[in-house]
Order: sequence, then structure tokens, then C-alpha cells
Amino acid sequence: MTTAEIAAKLDAHDPLAPARDRFLLPAGTVYLDGNSLGALPAKVARTVGHTITKQWGEDLITSWFRGGWLRLPLTVGDRIGRLLGAGPGQTVVGDTTSVQLFNALIAAARLRPGRRVLLMDAGGFPTDRYLAASAARLLGLELREAPMDRFAEAVRAAGDQLAVATASAVDFRTGELWDLAGLTRATHDAGGVVVWDLSHATGAVPLALDRDGIDFAVGCSYKFLSGGPGAPAYGYVARRHHDRLDHPLTGWHGHADPFAMEPSYRPADGIARYRSGTPHILSLVALDAALDAFCDVEPEQIRAKSLSLSAFFIDCVDEHLAGRGFDVVTPREPQRRGSQVTLRHKDAEELMATLIERGFIGDVRPPNLLRFGLNALYVSHADVLATVRELHALT
Amino acid sequence: MTTAEIAAKLDAHDPLAPARDRFLLPAGTVYLDGNSLGALPAKVARTVGHTITKQWGEDLITSWFRGGWLRLPLTVGDRIGRLLGAGPGQTVVGDTTSVQLFNALIAAARLRPGRRVLLMDAGGFPTDRYLAASAARLLGLELREAPMDRFAEAVRAAGDQLAVATASAVDFRTGELWDLAGLTRATHDAGGVVVWDLSHATGAVPLALDRDGIDFAVGCSYKFLSGGPGAPAYGYVARRHHDRLDHPLTGWHGHADPFAMEPSYRPADGIARYRSGTPHILSLVALDAALDAFCDVEPEQIRAKSLSLSAFFIDCVDEHLAGRGFDVVTPREPQRRGSQVTLRHKDAEELMATLIERGFIGDVRPPNLLRFGLNALYVSHADVLATVRELHALT
Repeated sequence: MTTAEIAAKLDAHDPLAPARDRFLLPAGTVYLDGNSLGALPAKVARTVGHTITKQWGEDLITSWFRGGWLRLPLTVGDRIGRLLGAGPGQTVVGDTTSVQLFNALIAAARLRPGRRVLLMDAGGFPTDRYLAASAARLLGLELREAPMDRFAEAVRAAGDQLAVATASAVDFRTGELWDLAGLTRATHDAGGVVVWDLSHATGAVPLALDRDGIDFAVGCSYKFLSGGPGAPAYGYVARRHHDRLDHPLTGWHGHADPFAMEPSYRPADGIARYRSGTPHILSLVALDAALDAFCDVEPEQIRAKSLSLSAFFIDCVDEHLAGRGFDVVTPREPQRRGSQVTLRHKDAEELMATLIERGFIGDVRPPNLLRFGLNALYVSHADVLATVRELHALT
Repeated sequence: MTTAEIAAKLDAHDPLAPARDRFLLPAGTVYLDGNSLGALPAKVARTVGHTITKQWGEDLITSWFRGGWLRLPLTVGDRIGRLLGAGPGQTVVGDTTSVQLFNALIAAARLRPGRRVLLMDAGGFPTDRYLAASAARLLGLELREAPMDRFAEAVRAAGDQLAVATASAVDFRTGELWDLAGLTRATHDAGGVVVWDLSHATGAVPLALDRDGIDFAVGCSYKFLSGGPGAPAYGYVARRHHDRLDHPLTGWHGHADPFAMEPSYRPADGIARYRSGTPHILSLVALDAALDAFCDVEPEQIRAKSLSLSAFFIDCVDEHLAGRGFDVVTPREPQRRGSQVTLRHKDAEELMATLIERGFIGDVRPPNLLRFGLNALYVSHADVLATVRELHALT
């Protein structure tokens, strides 16, 4: 079969194909940048419009209680929790990933007083690295970095000095998926606590935070969750840590009785204490509406479709782009892939600029990587093939 | 003249009366809770709708650059800066007031290494107190509290040990406006740095951060600025501190070149470094649209109208509610008033519940305070009189 025939067949048998209609994709565009900003779910505009016009405009201040705004960080948190493999009552939505990570790292380190090492993924997303350095400085911890392929080794080397190990589940450049369960186990064997950044994983790969014994996780919701530009981040804390949870961003919404306006912080029970300042409602209701696109979809279905897309992408590169200066950077072993394909090419920037002009939207990461995000809910095998053909035409 | 005649006359000569049409207020409602959640500005729904449908839905990822999203924390910051008496390039919008305050307190303390006292307003808003305690703990500072009427004294007592003094410009319970210039001067005389919380002041009282030599300020934008539920907060840093600005929330948007994805944090020049994580765009564009209501209004006009409303409110209480168990808690001297009137009554909760049922919306603060916020852009003297008359009918 030709690649065109294969694409047609895979799309015809794709159980998630109808989910594409849950998104408003502009005509004439192949959108492979949903790992950076997810496409617009169809329900968002109406929901946000209602929140503005009715809840804010007419019901005014009463919407905090009667309209459910106060509980949104928890209710939306639980909806994301389902995609994290997390039981209810362990996930909160709010703030940015930067702030969530900072908060989590300090809370995690406080669970291991006396230990002095904060170990960080050397290839992690910039904001994670900057905030890890900031948290380590405030706590007087030694910041160590290790590449992910030697992370377990670095965990063992830190041994009984390891307080916290933090890393991204999926490499934002290469799309490589790391062994969350194994690295968490290694960290626990050393007596440390893990903080995973799931920004490039949630909504794209199956996660099992509860089963894998993960301590803390954070992530953004504007990538595969399609929550909108700068949609609020989320934070997960395993239930076993709730009673001792001692985080620095002790905002009033995490108080046991916020409206009692007590002079001292008295944390709420459970994950509710992990709320902080007043939540950004408009961004939060957009995310809530966006998550409806996942309501009847199982993470395993997403994984199957995602791996089919990335495998087909790599096959098409092999078939159509051989000898044209492209290297497939993303691992070829399915179990090591997140939900993007990254190609290296010396003219990456130029090629991407032209692709975008022609309606094929991906992005680049310095110095020479072309990234293509594969959202299982709205990307088709035909989209993948069309993109590779365009790269063929350009090289 | 009767109070009704006075109200009619004051409203007829109110130069800000036309500004009421910039807000969508539900019929049959007198809204005096704009100090908690500002009313809906008429332009917000359309602007947010456009951002969702066109910028996110059609232009997708390109809106970060071409649509101006990346610069919104700075451009909206400058718009708020005008109301703060702050020249351009000193104000950033993002995160919550809790997070902004935490970030500011640590940055402020780092400007005064070796000094060990963080002095806090003993009656400050809960989140401020909780976050000040958290920051002091992380830095190993001694947290001292002083009531505002003895704050200057406490500043002098801390003397050369004073690192940071932090307080709210307007008391959230009583509506009392404090002497920002004087307390800032006293703090500087002791060699300390100030961090003001302007949440109940901005958009309500004239501010002159630059003229008064204020070091840091933070505040929320969902009260008198009407930016929407949980609208992003703002942070001001005086230009003279920018080069040494060393804040803990070093997110990637504050990097000199965020998209270079460099391994180490290299701060942007000027206030741009004070950005942190990815901004919540939907909430931010709502705020941007809301600020249009202020575009041709001078802070002095707002102040004049606000004082007229609060003076008239107190006159009406004196005239219509004498002997009915109400105390006016808000200062009677105009220069000591923010933009709310607070009444003490033993049945505060019950009274407010009935008022709200009847369409007069204020709120209560424990244990026995009725709060009425007076937004000069949309509250009339007739609204004030109607509210007092309703209280008369209820007592």
C-alpha cells in the first residue's frame, strides 16, 4: 500500500475520529502545534460567554458561592486527575506551572528535612530549571543536574542526601517519554520524594500517579488538554502527604475557613489547602469546558491513536524524506515516545517558517529541531502525511 | 433640602454619571459590592469572545507574537500604572495577589541583607498575613505585627533591623485610607523598604507611587478595576530597584530571551524580568477591556465622586438610621476614607442577607460589619439613598 492508502485506512478505522468535531480548526490548516497551544474546543466560547454575561454580569458576587466558582480549582482538578490516574481529592487547578512547581518543590523538600540535595533533569523545560534553582537557594539545598539517561544513577549517587528529584515526564525537545514508575521507585529507594512535570504528558500518554506512588506532580493545561492560552496549571499531591503538606504559597483560598478572615493560616483539610490566591475564573471555566472533549475518552484510546500517528509519521519520513537532511530525534521504540515527533534539520527555522505560511503549523526549538505535536483528538493520519509531503516539496 | 433632593442634585451634576453606561448592571439591583467583585464592563464579553474565536481558534499559536499576547503583562501593567501614579515600565500584570505579594516581599528583603525584621500590618487582609509569615520563615526573618495606627512607631522601633514594612493602603474592613507617603518616608528613614497592597485603593483613590518613593506595590484588579472574577493581580517595582531586582519566581517569561530556552536564568532588562509563568490570557484580555472604562477618567475625578458618595452615605445614615443600632466605622474625615462605607450592627449577617434578597448587594465581614463599596464609575447618590432607606425599613 502507498502511504496515502495507509493513512486513509488508519483514519477510516480510527475510533477517535469523531472527536475532531469537538474542536474548531480553521479550514486549510494542519495543526501540529497542539503540544504548545491546543486547538479551540467548540464549547469554550459559549461557556465563557455565559460566565461573563450571566454569572459575572447578572449574578455578580453571588457566583462565588451559588455559581460554584469557589470550588472550581477542586472540581476541575478532579477532572484532570482522571487523566493523571489520580483518585479524587488530590489535584488542584490554579496559577502557572512555574508557580505550581516552585510551591511543590519547597513542599516536597520540607518532607525530607536534613537532606540537602535537589536533583533536577538537566534537559528540563527552562522555567522548571529556573524555579528549581530558586527553590534550592531559598532552602539552602545543593542543586544537582543530571541528564535523564543517567538520572537513576544520579539518584543513587545522592543516596541518603537526596531530598527531592524533579524532572519532566516527556522531553519538550525530543518528545522522549521517561520511565516515571522506575525513576520514582529509585527515588523512593534513596528515601527521596519526586516532583514530576507532566506538561507534555497529560492528555497525551496514560499516567498512573496513584499506582506509581508519585508524590507530587505539576503541569500545564494549555497543551494537550486544550485549555486555552495560559490556561491555569495543576498540582497533584498524593493523599498520604496531605496531613503534613507544608507549602509556601499559603493563600487565603487554602485556609480552613477563608471567609472567617482569621489572623493566622489554618490549613484546610486535604488537597483544599493546596489552593492559594483567588482563582482566575475566566481562564478556569474555559479549561473546564475544554475538558468536556475528554469526557468519554479513555487515556488508553488516546495512547493507541497517538502511537499510531507518531509511528506513521516516522514511516512517512523514512519513505518520503530519506536523503534530505532530516534525522528523526524522537525514539522509534513506541514505549519511549510521548505524543510528538521531532526532526533535526540544519534549516529548521527556515523550513518551519515556510510550512507555517502554507498552513502546516508546528514549531521549532533551538538550534535545529522541528517539532510536530500529535493531539489524538483532532490530528489525522492524513494530516501527518500532508505535512511530510510538504516537507518533501520544500527540500 | 431632603436627602432625596440632595441625591438628585448631586447625580445631576456628576461629571462621571455617563460612565455608568460603560457597565452592564442588572435591572433592579443596587450594586455596592464592587470593592469585592467589580461590575461587568460592557466591552468585556465582545473582547474575550474575539480572543477565543479569532485569536485562539483561528490564529492559534501565532497569537503569542502577532496577536500581542506575549506583551500583555507589560502593556496592561502600564495601563494600571497610570492609575497608580507610576510611569511606564514599572508595573507587570499576572498571577494572584497572594503570589505577587510573596514574590515582592522576598525581593524587597533581598535589597536589605543583614536586616532581620519583616513588619506587617496587624489588620491586613488574611492572604497578606499568611504570605508574609511564609516569606519571613523562608528567609529566616522575624515577623512583627503592628496595628496601622501605631505602624510608624513600630517602624522606628525596628530601626536599623527593619528590612521590609508591608501593609494595605486601605483597610478592607473599615475602609480607612492610610498615609502611604508618610509611612513610606518613615520606613525609608529607618533604612527599610516598603511593599504596599493596593487592592482596595487602585481605581478608587489617587495614588502617586513614583512621587511618594514607594518601592514595591501589589494589588488585585477584580475590585475597583472591574477586571473580572479572579482577574490577574499586578506588581509594581520602582525603576531604581530594577537592576538589583532579585525575586524568587523566576519564570521563563522573565528571561532575557525566553525562546532561546537557555539552561540558566538570565533576567530581562527592566520590569520585564518581573514576569513569571505563561500569562492567563483570557483573564488578562478581560482586564484589558475593562480598563477602557477608565480611559478618559482622571483619578482626581474618581476621588471627588467617591468622597461625595461616602459623605452622602454617612449623612444619610445620620439622618435616617439614628437610634437603630448602626455605628459608622469608616472615618468621617474625608482624607482618611477609601471608597467604601462600613457600618457596625449586631445583626449584620441577617440584615445583609435580606438586603441582598431585595436587590441591594453589599457584603459582611466578621463579626458584625456591613460593607458597602462605592465605585465612582457606576454608583449614584440615588443608589446610596435607596440602600439606606432599605436599611431603615429593615430595622
